Amino acid sequence: MTSATREVGEPLAAARLRSVDAYWRAANYLTAGQIYLMGNPLLRTPLAQQDIKPRPLGHWGTSPGLNFIYAHLNRAIIEHDLDAMYVIGPGHGGPALFANAWLEGSYSRTRPDIARDGHGMATLFREFSFPGGVPSHVAPEVPGSIHEGGELGYSLAHAYGAALDNPNLLVACVIGDGEAETGPLAASWHSNKFINPATDGAVLPILHLNGYKIANPTVLARITDAELDCLLRGYGHYPIYVSGDDPHQLHQDMAAALDRVVAMIDEIQTAARMVSAPPRPQWPMIVLRTPKGWTGPRWVDGLPVEGTWRSHQVPLADVRTDPEHRRQFMDWLHSYRPEELFDETGCPTKLVTDNVPAPEHRMGANPHANGGLLLTPLHLPVAKEFAVSTVGPGDTMAEPTRVLGRYLREVMVRNAGYRNFRLFGPDETASNRLGAVYDVSDKQWSAAVLPSDEHLARDGRVLEVLSEHMCQGWLEGYLLTGRHGLLNSYEAFAHVVDSMVNQHAKWLKVSRQLPWRAPIASLNYLITSHVWRQDHNGFSHQDPGFIDHVANKRAEIARIYLPPDANTLLSVAAHCLASRDYINVIVAGKNDAPVWLTAEQAAVHCARGADIFEWASTDGGSVPDVVLGCAGDVPTLEVLAAVSILRKHLPEIRIRVVNVVDLFRLQSNTQHSHGMTDAEYDTLFTTDRPVIFAYHGYPSLIHRLTYRRRNHQHMHVRGYLEEGSTTTPFDMLVLNKMDRFQLVIDAIDLMPGLDGPAVRALRAAMVEAHDRHREWIRTHGEDLPEVTDWRWDPADD
Amino acid sequence: MTSATREVGEPLAAARLRSVDAYWRAANYLTAGQIYLMGNPLLRTPLAQQDIKPRPLGHWGTSPGLNFIYAHLNRAIIEHDLDAMYVIGPGHGGPALFANAWLEGSYSRTRPDIARDGHGMATLFREFSFPGGVPSHVAPEVPGSIHEGGELGYSLAHAYGAALDNPNLLVACVIGDGEAETGPLAASWHSNKFINPATDGAVLPILHLNGYKIANPTVLARITDAELDCLLRGYGHYPIYVSGDDPHQLHQDMAAALDRVVAMIDEIQTAARMVSAPPRPQWPMIVLRTPKGWTGPRWVDGLPVEGTWRSHQVPLADVRTDPEHRRQFMDWLHSYRPEELFDETGCPTKLVTDNVPAPEHRMGANPHANGGLLLTPLHLPVAKEFAVSTVGPGDTMAEPTRVLGRYLREVMVRNAGYRNFRLFGPDETASNRLGAVYDVSDKQWSAAVLPSDEHLARDGRVLEVLSEHMCQGWLEGYLLTGRHGLLNSYEAFAHVVDSMVNQHAKWLKVSRQLPWRAPIASLNYLITSHVWRQDHNGFSHQDPGFIDHVANKRAEIARIYLPPDANTLLSVAAHCLASRDYINVIVAGKNDAPVWLTAEQAAVHCARGADIFEWASTDGGSVPDVVLGCAGDVPTLEVLAAVSILRKHLPEIRIRVVNVVDLFRLQSNTQHSHGMTDAEYDTLFTTDRPVIFAYHGYPSLIHRLTYRRRNHQHMHVRGYLEEGSTTTPFDMLVLNKMDRFQLVIDAIDLMPGLDGPAVRALRAAMVEAHDRHREWIRTHGEDLPEVTDWRWDPADD
Repeated sequence: MTSATREVGEPLAAARLRSVDAYWRAANYLTAGQIYLMGNPLLRTPLAQQDIKPRPLGHWGTSPGLNFIYAHLNRAIIEHDLDAMYVIGPGHGGPALFANAWLEGSYSRTRPDIARDGHGMATLFREFSFPGGVPSHVAPEVPGSIHEGGELGYSLAHAYGAALDNPNLLVACVIGDGEAETGPLAASWHSNKFINPATDGAVLPILHLNGYKIANPTVLARITDAELDCLLRGYGHYPIYVSGDDPHQLHQDMAAALDRVVAMIDEIQTAARMVSAPPRPQWPMIVLRTPKGWTGPRWVDGLPVEGTWRSHQVPLADVRTDPEHRRQFMDWLHSYRPEELFDETGCPTKLVTDNVPAPEHRMGANPHANGGLLLTPLHLPVAKEFAVSTVGPGDTMAEPTRVLGRYLREVMVRNAGYRNFRLFGPDETASNRLGAVYDVSDKQWSAAVLPSDEHLARDGRVLEVLSEHMCQGWLEGYLLTGRHGLLNSYEAFAHVVDSMVNQHAKWLKVSRQLPWRAPIASLNYLITSHVWRQDHNGFSHQDPGFIDHVANKRAEIARIYLPPDANTLLSVAAHCLASRDYINVIVAGKNDAPVWLTAEQAAVHCARGADIFEWASTDGGSVPDVVLGCAGDVPTLEVLAAVSILRKHLPEIRIRVVNVVDLFRLQSNTQHSHGMTDAEYDTLFTTDRPVIFAYHGYPSLIHRLTYRRRNHQHMHVRGYLEEGSTTTPFDMLVLNKMDRFQLVIDAIDLMPGLDGPAVRALRAAMVEAHDRHREWIRTHGEDLPEVTDWRWDPADD
Repeated sequence: MTSATREVGEPLAAARLRSVDAYWRAANYLTAGQIYLMGNPLLRTPLAQQDIKPRPLGHWGTSPGLNFIYAHLNRAIIEHDLDAMYVIGPGHGGPALFANAWLEGSYSRTRPDIARDGHGMATLFREFSFPGGVPSHVAPEVPGSIHEGGELGYSLAHAYGAALDNPNLLVACVIGDGEAETGPLAASWHSNKFINPATDGAVLPILHLNGYKIANPTVLARITDAELDCLLRGYGHYPIYVSGDDPHQLHQDMAAALDRVVAMIDEIQTAARMVSAPPRPQWPMIVLRTPKGWTGPRWVDGLPVEGTWRSHQVPLADVRTDPEHRRQFMDWLHSYRPEELFDETGCPTKLVTDNVPAPEHRMGANPHANGGLLLTPLHLPVAKEFAVSTVGPGDTMAEPTRVLGRYLREVMVRNAGYRNFRLFGPDETASNRLGAVYDVSDKQWSAAVLPSDEHLARDGRVLEVLSEHMCQGWLEGYLLTGRHGLLNSYEAFAHVVDSMVNQHAKWLKVSRQLPWRAPIASLNYLITSHVWRQDHNGFSHQDPGFIDHVANKRAEIARIYLPPDANTLLSVAAHCLASRDYINVIVAGKNDAPVWLTAEQAAVHCARGADIFEWASTDGGSVPDVVLGCAGDVPTLEVLAAVSILRKHLPEIRIRVVNVVDLFRLQSNTQHSHGMTDAEYDTLFTTDRPVIFAYHGYPSLIHRLTYRRRNHQHMHVRGYLEEGSTTTPFDMLVLNKMDRFQLVIDAIDLMPGLDGPAVRALRAAMVEAHDRHREWIRTHGEDLPEVTDWRWDPADD
C-alpha cells in the first residue's frame, strides 16, 4: 500500500511541522499528566508521592493517536479555513480530548475556573477521572463532543447524522479498530449511500488501526492490506493510508493525506452543487496505522507495552510506589520536552498555540457540537386542524398513523426552508402508513435508481435503511447538532436499539446538569405496527417491552404516551415535537380504529394525561362499583366494547372508564414530574373499588407504577402475556385474555356480591362468545365480522 | 461480472435438469398454494370462493429464490453426498421452507398427520398462517430450521455457530439483501476470521439479491458490481455470481456454482487437515441475483409486481372476490404445470422426488437442526472441589469470577474430547478474570498472528470478538445444534443483545411445545464487571437493566441468579451448565470480596434460592424487629457491614438477614415455578416488620416481584438510581444510597418506636461517616481504606 505522502511530497514547511509536532507533544503530555498527576503538573519540583494519583485511571493506548489526529485537523482547519467538528469513536480516550480542549482554550470557555495556565493545568489533571471531577470518557463534559463512545459502535452513524443538512460542515470521525468490529459500526459504513453532497456536509472517516482491543488484536488490523483496501473500496470509499511510527514522516504523511481529503471533498461538493445529481462519489477516508500507546513506555517490567494491548489503559501501574516505574514515568513525560511547550506560568507557548485555530474555528467550540445553541424551534401546525371530525365517540373510523402522516407532511412543508426536520425509519415508513410525507418529500438515496422506483431522490427528508441502529444513530447525531426528528419503528424491533437508548438517556441526564450545554430537541419514537396487530407476522414480531425499557430511564428524561385514537395521537405528537431533552415514546396503531374524542376533547384529555371518559361511564360522578382502566388504543377499544355490553345487560352497575394517555401519570408525583398525587389518583381510581386495567404491554409495568397507591390491592391488570402466533387480531386478544368478553367476565367476577340471573346469563354468554370465536376462526381463518363493531352485543345474537 | 457457469459449462445433464426444475416448480406451487388456498389444493375442480383464504398471509417475494436454492442444495447433496443444513435469513419465507419440508418428506416425520399426498397437501395449505395452524415465518415448527428470521440480522452468526466443531457439516446460509443492511449481519461477515477449517465445518453464505425490502431497494443491490465484488472480497470471500431470470440458464449456473463451492471447500478443508495451519483461506460464497417474486404475477392492476417490492407479500390481493385476480392466480399456479409434479393422489411424482436426497441427508431431517437429539451432557466437575475454603463467614477474600474461571478450565478439560463446550465474550474474558481457561485453551483465531500475541490459535475453545451480537449469535447457533456454552459480558453492554434475547426466548417457548424438538442446553450469561464496579469506566458502563429485560420473558424460560460470593457463584454456574431450555442470567462480580459461605453452605443456600443468613442474624429464630434483605454480591456485603454496625451498637435489636440468590424466589409460586408460596415468603420476610432490601439493580424490579406479598407495604428497596460517574467503588454506593451507613440509617428510621441516646448517637455517627467519606475521596481520590473491611465500625473511630 503506498501512502499518500509518498505521492505528493512533504507539504509541511519546517516551521509548521515544528508547531504541529509541539502541539501534539503538548497534548500527549497533558494526557499522561491527567492520568497520573494530582499535583506538580509541570514537574518543576521533584515528584513526590502525593503528586501521583493513588488510583490512576484512564486509557492511554488510543490517546496519542487521537492527539495526532486533532493536531493535524487543527493544521488543516487553519490552512483551509474549515468548519470542522469531531466524533471520537474510541470514547475512552477522554484525557486526549480534555487535553486538546484545554490547549486550544475551549475548555476554559465552558469551565471558566480552569484557565489555560499552570493553575488550570493542575485542576485539569486533578479532576480527570477523579471523584467529583470529570469522567474518563469523551462525555458531555468535553466541549466539542456529541458522542460519549463508552459503549462503542455508534460513532459513524452519529457523524452522518451531524453532517445531514450542514453543507459546509466537515465531520471528522475517528473509528477505533475495536469499535469497527461491532455491528452498528459495520453497518454504518453504508451511510455514504444516503448522504447528498449537494445539501449535506462531509463525513471523513479516520479508521485508526492501532491493532488491539483490551486483550486481543483487532480483525481489521490482522487482515491483509489487500483485503482491507478491498473492503473499504467496497464500502464506497477512497482510502488514503498513513502508516508508521516515525513522527517526522507521519506528520508529513498525515498533512498530505488531509490536504488531499480536503481537495477531494471540495471537488465532490463543488460538482454536486453545480451539476444536478452527478454519480455517487467515492468519498475519501483515512486509514491511520500507528502503534497503540505510541510514544509511551516501550517496555515495562520486561514486557513490551508500546504497540501492544498492554498499553490499553495505564501503562505504568505503580508510579506511586515503584521507583523504577516512577523513573520511567518521568522519562516518559520529559520525552515530550515540556519546557518547550509551556512557559513559566504553565501557559502553552506560541510554538504550540500556532497550531490552534481562530476561536470560532476551534473544534472544542464548534456550535454544532452544542446543538441546542443552533436550535430553531419547529414551526408546528395546530394539531386540531388535522383531526378527524367525529359526531359521537367511536362513530368515525381512522388509521391513526395515517392521520399523523398528514400532520408530519405539513411539518415538513412549514419547516422546509430551515431543513431541520427529518423522519427516520427502518424500511417501514410506508408500512407504518406515514406515506403522506411522500407528497412533499422523497426518500434520500444516493445509490442507483431505476425507473420503477418511487420517491427516491438525492434530496429528501425521509431516511430509510433496514437498520434500526443506523436510524437511531443518524437521528441522535441530527438532534445533538440542533435539529429535530422522529423515528418510526415496528414495536418489537425497537429493542434493537435498547442499548443506544441507554446511552442517549445518560447523555441527556449529564448534559442537563451542565449549564453551558443548551437543550436539544427530544428523541421521539413513534412505535407502531404494535404487538396487537402483528397477528399476520406472528410471534417474532410481538413484543411490547420497549416501553418497559424506557420506563427504567430517569424520570426527568423518559416520557411514554399511549394515545387511544387518531386525534389524541396528533395532540401527543405535536407536544413531543415541541419538547426538549426528553426521550418520548409514542405507541400508536396503524389500523383502522374508532375515533373516540374530538380534536378539542383530545387536546384536553392529553393535557390531563389520564382522565375519566365520562361519556362511557355510568357512575354519574358518584363512587363507581368498578373502574375499567385502559392505556393503549387496542385496550381502550376492548374496554369500551366491554362497557357497551355491561351497560346494556347490567344497567344498574356504576361503571367508570379511565383512560391513561401519559403513562407516568400513574406513578406518584414524588417519583415523576408527570405523576399524580395520591389524592388525584384516588379520585380517578377510588380507594377501594375493583380496577380492571387493560394495558397495551406487559401487565407488570402497571403494577410497578402503581404499587404504592392506596387501591393497589384491587388492581387487576390485563395485558400481553407473551402468547401469540400467526392468527387474527381478535384472537391475539383472546389468547392474552384481554378481549372484551374476558373483561366483562373479569368485571362480573371482581365486583363483590354481584349475582342474579342477569349476571349469570351474561357471564355464560361471554363464555359462549369465546367458544364461538374459537370455532369461527378455525373454520374461517378470519375474525367474526361482528367484532369489528365495538358496540356489538354477542349476548343479543 | 461473469458468472461461474460461463466458465465451467453446463454441468446438469438433461434428466437432472428436468428433475431439479420440476422440484423447484413443485416447491413454488406449494408456496403459492399455502398463501392462498384453504381447499382444492390440486385445482382439480373449478376454484370456488371458499377454496380461497379470506385473509391470505405470507411472503411470496423471497420464496421462489429460497425454493431455487433448496432445489439446488438438494441436487448438490445427492451428487456430492453432503451433510448439509440451512439457515434462512429471509425468515418470512416460511411457506417456501414448509413446502420443501413437505416435498422431501421430512414434514411428515414431525407431523405424521400430514402425509405426502393430496390430503396432507390440503392440510399443509390450510394450516399455513392460519389461526391454530403454523406461523408464516421459518419458525421452530419448520423441520430443519434453527433460525426464525422474523427479526433479521442473525442468520450468518447462527450459521457460524452451527458450523463450529462440526467438521463435516456444510451450513448453507441464505442472506437476504434487506437483512444485509442490519448491523449484526454486517459484522458477522468477519466470522470467517475465526472459523478453523481443520476442526470446524464450512459456512456457505448465499447472498440473495432480489433487490428490494418491504418498500425500498436494497443497498447491496444498488451499488456497482465492482463495489460489491470488492466488498465481499474485503470480507475475505471468493464470490461466485449467479444472476438472471431465465430458469434454464440459472439452473446450469447455480449447479456449476455449487459444484465449484463444494470443490473449493473440500480443497480448503483437506489442506487444513493435512498441513498445520495453512494461510487463512478465501472461503467461497454465492451471490444469487434473481427477481423478487420470480415466476409470480408480472403485472397486477397495471403495476409491475415481479421484480419489484410489490411482490414482497401477497402479490394478488383479491383472489377471493376479483375475477381478474382469480384468473391471474389460476394462470400463475398452472404455469408450474402441477400435473407433471403431483400424481392423482397428490403425491409428488418421481420427476420431483428424484431431486430429494436420501432420508438421512434431507435438510429438513438433519439432526444438527434439532440439536437436542445430538446433545451430550457436559461432564461437570463438582463445584465444591473448586470452592474457596473459609474459616468463618467473610474471613477469606476471593475474586468470584476468577474462582469460576478455574472451574470452567476444568469443564474444558473434562469435555475436551467431545468438543462441545465453548466460552464466548466480547473481548472481555481476561478483563472478566476468567483467564484460567487459557491454561487449557487458546482463543480461536484464524487471522494473522504476531510473535507478541498470547493465547491465539487456530483451534481454541474461547471465541472473542468485539461484538456482543456476534458472540450471542454464535452461541445460539452452537446451542441450537446441540452443544453447550457460556457468554461473559460487561453488564451494561448485555443490552446490546436485548432483541436477540427476545427472539431466542420466543424460539425456546415454541420449541418446548413441539414434542419432536428435543431440549437443548440453556443459554447461559455470566454478567460481570457490573454496575457497582464500573466506578473507573464511568456512567456509560453503569446499567443493571439486563436483568429487568430478561425478567419480562416467560416464567418457564427465564432464570436469574445473583450469587453473593465466589462459592455460591460456583454452585449456581454448575447448575446452569447442566440445565436445559432456559435463559440463565448469572450476575457476579470480579473484584476481591469476602466469601460468606463454605462450599457445603453454598450448595444448600443455592438450592433454597433464598434463605436466612442465621450467622448474621440476631433474631434467634423469633420474629425480628427488622429484616435486611439482599440480592447481589455488593448489596450483600453492604447489608452485612450494616448489620455488623447495628449489632454492635444496638445489640437489643432483633435483626434478620435474608439473602436471595435465585431472584424469582421472590415471586409467587403461582407466577413462576421457582416462586415461594406466600407462607414461605412470610416465614422469611414476616408479615408486618420493616424490610430493607438492598438489591443489585433498579429497585422497581423487587417491588414488581413482591407486590402481591402480604408485607409489601413495608418493603423498602435500595438499588441503582442511575447515579454515577468516574469515581470510587464506595462512592457509587453512597451516590445511590445503598451504602452501609445509609442502610443503618434506614433501619433506624424504619423501626417504629426506636429511640434513645444510643440510637441517636449511632444515627449521627452514620451521617458523619458520610461526610467523612465525601471529604476523603475528594482529597485522596480513593476510598477510605477502612471501607474495605466489612467489619469496620465507623462509630468506633
